Amino acid sequence: MDRRGFLKGVGASVLGAVVSPLAAAAAEERRPNFVVIFADDLGYGDLGCFGHPTLRTPHLDRMAAEGAKLTQFYSAASVCTPSRAGLMTGRLPIRNGMCSDKRAVLFPDSGGGLPESELTIARLLKSKGYATACVGKWHLGHLPQFLPTSHGFDYYYGIPYSNDMDRTAGAHRDACIDPKVEYFNVPLMRNEEVIERPADQSTITKRYAEEAVAFIKRAKDKPFFLYLAHSMPHVPLFASEDFADTSLRGIYGDVITEIDWSVGRVLDTLRAEGLAENTLVIFTSDNGPWLVFKEHGGSSGLLRDGKGSTWEGGMREPTIAWWPGTIKGQTVITDMASTLDVLPTFAELAGADVPKARVYDGWSMADVLKGKGRGRRNVMYYYRGTQLRAIRKGPWKMHLYTKTEYVAGKVEKHEPPLLFNVERDPSEKYDVAAAHADVIADLKKEIAAHEATVERGPSQLEIPLKKA
Amino acid sequence: MDRRGFLKGVGASVLGAVVSPLAAAAAEERRPNFVVIFADDLGYGDLGCFGHPTLRTPHLDRMAAEGAKLTQFYSAASVCTPSRAGLMTGRLPIRNGMCSDKRAVLFPDSGGGLPESELTIARLLKSKGYATACVGKWHLGHLPQFLPTSHGFDYYYGIPYSNDMDRTAGAHRDACIDPKVEYFNVPLMRNEEVIERPADQSTITKRYAEEAVAFIKRAKDKPFFLYLAHSMPHVPLFASEDFADTSLRGIYGDVITEIDWSVGRVLDTLRAEGLAENTLVIFTSDNGPWLVFKEHGGSSGLLRDGKGSTWEGGMREPTIAWWPGTIKGQTVITDMASTLDVLPTFAELAGADVPKARVYDGWSMADVLKGKGRGRRNVMYYYRGTQLRAIRKGPWKMHLYTKTEYVAGKVEKHEPPLLFNVERDPSEKYDVAAAHADVIADLKKEIAAHEATVERGPSQLEIPLKKA
Repeated sequence: MDRRGFLKGVGASVLGAVVSPLAAAAAEERRPNFVVIFADDLGYGDLGCFGHPTLRTPHLDRMAAEGAKLTQFYSAASVCTPSRAGLMTGRLPIRNGMCSDKRAVLFPDSGGGLPESELTIARLLKSKGYATACVGKWHLGHLPQFLPTSHGFDYYYGIPYSNDMDRTAGAHRDACIDPKVEYFNVPLMRNEEVIERPADQSTITKRYAEEAVAFIKRAKDKPFFLYLAHSMPHVPLFASEDFADTSLRGIYGDVITEIDWSVGRVLDTLRAEGLAENTLVIFTSDNGPWLVFKEHGGSSGLLRDGKGSTWEGGMREPTIAWWPGTIKGQTVITDMASTLDVLPTFAELAGADVPKARVYDGWSMADVLKGKGRGRRNVMYYYRGTQLRAIRKGPWKMHLYTKTEYVAGKVEKHEPPLLFNVERDPSEKYDVAAAHADVIADLKKEIAAHEATVERGPSQLEIPLKKA
Repeated sequence: MDRRGFLKGVGASVLGAVVSPLAAAAAEERRPNFVVIFADDLGYGDLGCFGHPTLRTPHLDRMAAEGAKLTQFYSAASVCTPSRAGLMTGRLPIRNGMCSDKRAVLFPDSGGGLPESELTIARLLKSKGYATACVGKWHLGHLPQFLPTSHGFDYYYGIPYSNDMDRTAGAHRDACIDPKVEYFNVPLMRNEEVIERPADQSTITKRYAEEAVAFIKRAKDKPFFLYLAHSMPHVPLFASEDFADTSLRGIYGDVITEIDWSVGRVLDTLRAEGLAENTLVIFTSDNGPWLVFKEHGGSSGLLRDGKGSTWEGGMREPTIAWWPGTIKGQTVITDMASTLDVLPTFAELAGADVPKARVYDGWSMADVLKGKGRGRRNVMYYYRGTQLRAIRKGPWKMHLYTKTEYVAGKVEKHEPPLLFNVERDPSEKYDVAAAHADVIADLKKEIAAHEATVERGPSQLEIPLKKA
């Protein structure tokens, strides 16, 4: 900032040829910083600005008022591990084995993780001189070779898998509904080291926020990428003392209030450090709400079903993008987009090349965020494990298979498929297949073309941990 | 405005005793204007700022950003006539016969209407020198003695009952889904005269807006009350040429977009005339969405059921209050409130006395709107016809009777009653009656106390029209 101010004050023309190294440095400096704030199991309807009546989220509401609300934004999958793999790589998990029909996600007894051959956002940006940090939940492999520090992150602080794992012998039968910190022997790590076990989840949201703030302050002299992945509102729910019993929405509301506060901490830090106008911040979630946990789970608002489902409630996320001076305030983007689009977006904005030989499933959102064009995504694929259950193209969503998640019952096959216009009928209530044979034919063709591009990698989620 | 400017310039103390008539006039002038914009069958989830993904409502979103969103605001009933009676009088319809178990609302063959003995907001404000106008749908009686001009409005322009009534012989079987203007022989009236029949519904929203704007310009030299009650999105849906096929949400979205535009017209007029800081505008709806009309009906978002129901989706409305300089921007009010509270609010703000001998069911919202206190309402009653089906006190809602509306089935009686904490569980999914016998006992006592205050008036809705 100082250097640019200096150049501006003196007048570039006076300095002539002398400025070129400085100008190059200034250009380098202008590469935007990126922050992704990722919630876990947050529902589409769980923010004030997305319509929740009693969940107060003043910081996220302000972020939306100063930026853009994305109302048709999808995660890459409806459960944790494949969703995060999609975000980090810009590729559907079916391409790299980060999904499975036997094990939905990675567990503490898993020996697999995100393959080294995959290129993460962090590694891509590192090649362009970015400082990178991952704060929070990783869930893409907990062996050293899979940790954030092996995937392009300079720094890692967080838990390597879900906060409900590593249940201890003395845990309450309903440990997730009536939790104590000691029920979950989840490690808290700094880089490759375990620094606390069990992680004290009652203060973890606050500590993530402080780690994020410290990283921004440390990194601010070069461009940086911060991935802040909160462990909650995934059950078990813990709020710190300052937030316990503060919300009308019970403990779930307390947790969201604390996450909302943490968003405020990050944005305030960016403002205070003079970085706001050079930082793109995206807030979203990994998948829909875990409905089976009732009041401890969230709400997908007007959308159908939640986590684990290929109905809209499983994969459409409450998403906000913020970049003062570049994204206009009060923007509402109804164009389709996805976490799969984050990597190509950051690549374009940072001037980084994405390997041409690799199949990507995303499109840069740079133009639509800047208000300079329409979104480039027109198709979305809804996988559950390795099964392609649904496709959306334009407003049309076709279901080949459906299942209401986390309740007894089998996956139902639909032939003819179900068809919904999810822009007119976002709740997927009114099947209009009978009137649109042409649309169904087109969507089937689209699926065939997509499937021809898919080389299924061997499942990473089924690899067992080797005994030492 | 000029007079106040003059006084300020000269200095009140210099003028001494001479100013008193002027000062009195200035005080008179400072009485705020009131505008109520009332939608028909709009769902809780149908505005952008209440979370709809594809319904764009930039004017209402801006209204909320500049004012307050009320997220626990109820209509007086879940269908048209009783709801409007409650708004206009501040009294539950059970007290004045504006509800019935045989006929849910007034029809063209009805001979009854809002009794002359009732005091409307308009008549109350007229006694304090307000100019008053009703633009749009009335539905509180279409005989001369029941029309707006007999109930305190100086001016009336609109239709006297619902836009789907007076079906003509040649109407399509599904006239409400595939409508033409000529299917509905609804009269458009100015004061007591029919000026167009059938009312051209394809331009009616636009004409309401222009009538509203003209009234504001005409009335602006005294305090005024404008009641702008749109006939839509009640089916049949019509949008004018400028709005047809403009929305991602189909014809329902086109209609909301036009209503949203009309809100912009009203607020822009208030701004342009220098009236914004002296005008309280409230936007809300008469009841929830008419779900049986599928894509032609709205969405109650995360709330359960819709129009006709005593589940939350039937009576909780997307509500916005706007009063620049008095209501702070970006306010979210989660305190309970109701259309029943509008009359006492306006009475307090206009310095009008409400008759002491009459039972009222509302509390002034003046303090909570100004940010000077909490909402005064702690209880809400949910009637369907003359049957009290549910009560809410604080976060607790108890159902004695339920029915999913507009589908086959009987009213179900619950003993023990159902109990929901609607602040933690706004979707009314998790009955917690078993754990809260004390709450149920308290709510039953509350009901007994309420019922002791109710003298049921003879039903106005069952009175037939006398043949001429």
